[in-house]
Amino acid sequence: MKYSAINFNDKLEQFSEQFSPKNIARLNDYLFKLVKFQGDFVWHTHDDTDEAFIVLDGDMRIDFRDGSVDIHTGEMFVVEKGVEHKPFAEKECRIMLVEPGGVKNTGDAGGELTAEEDIWI
Amino acid sequence: MKYSAINFNDKLEQFSEQFSPKNIARLNDYLFKLVKFQGDFVWHTHDDTDEAFIVLDGDMRIDFRDGSVDIHTGEMFVVEKGVEHKPFAEKECRIMLVEPGGVKNTGDAGGELTAEEDIWI
Repeated sequence: MKYSAINFNDKLEQFSEQFSPKNIARLNDYLFKLVKFQGDFVWHTHDDTDEAFIVLDGDMRIDFRDGSVDIHTGEMFVVEKGVEHKPFAEKECRIMLVEPGGVKNTGDAGGELTAEEDIWI
Repeated sequence: MKYSAINFNDKLEQFSEQFSPKNIARLNDYLFKLVKFQGDFVWHTHDDTDEAFIVLDGDMRIDFRDGSVDIHTGEMFVVEKGVEHKPFAEKECRIMLVEPGGVKNTGDAGGELTAEEDIWI
């Protein structure tokens, strides 16, 4: 079939690894990525780009140095560029990220949670 | 509250007008827009940009000159730039569009379904 839709649940069933975003669609030079995670991510900053979090299933929180935001299923939030943040989820949460290609998941922080980039599912 | 999430259902309750995208979030120079529609949109092309359709609630179809794609709740599709297309929904469908700022909903076609741009809810 020449044209087919991307089903989020079908894609989410294709991996179990946490903290490792998988590309599912490209829009010009932007990527849509699915990621599963539970627990604390690292504090980090993306100096050159905003980053959109869309919660597909679950509940997450993003901590900032001066506050936090809770994001539930059917909600989204955009972290502005240059703003240090730390995602957290008590139970496994499934989210879609939208950001330009070439963005490292751990931003300026690096470390062991840095994921391999450009994995398509 | 300094940081608050964007709830799709809350935003969708704020308007009933069809075929008229409302901005809900900005990501760099891209916009996330909600739109409700039912019936046939016009054949049109965006010569300069891809356009992402994410179905939040309902079923829609996009017709192309050489095929079509059905997109249901929890699915997305990216129409590549330069590809002529016509969205259709039998019952009212609620979708999120992601595209650069400044894109006209009817693309090159214009006409009576051309919506006012840059309305935020």
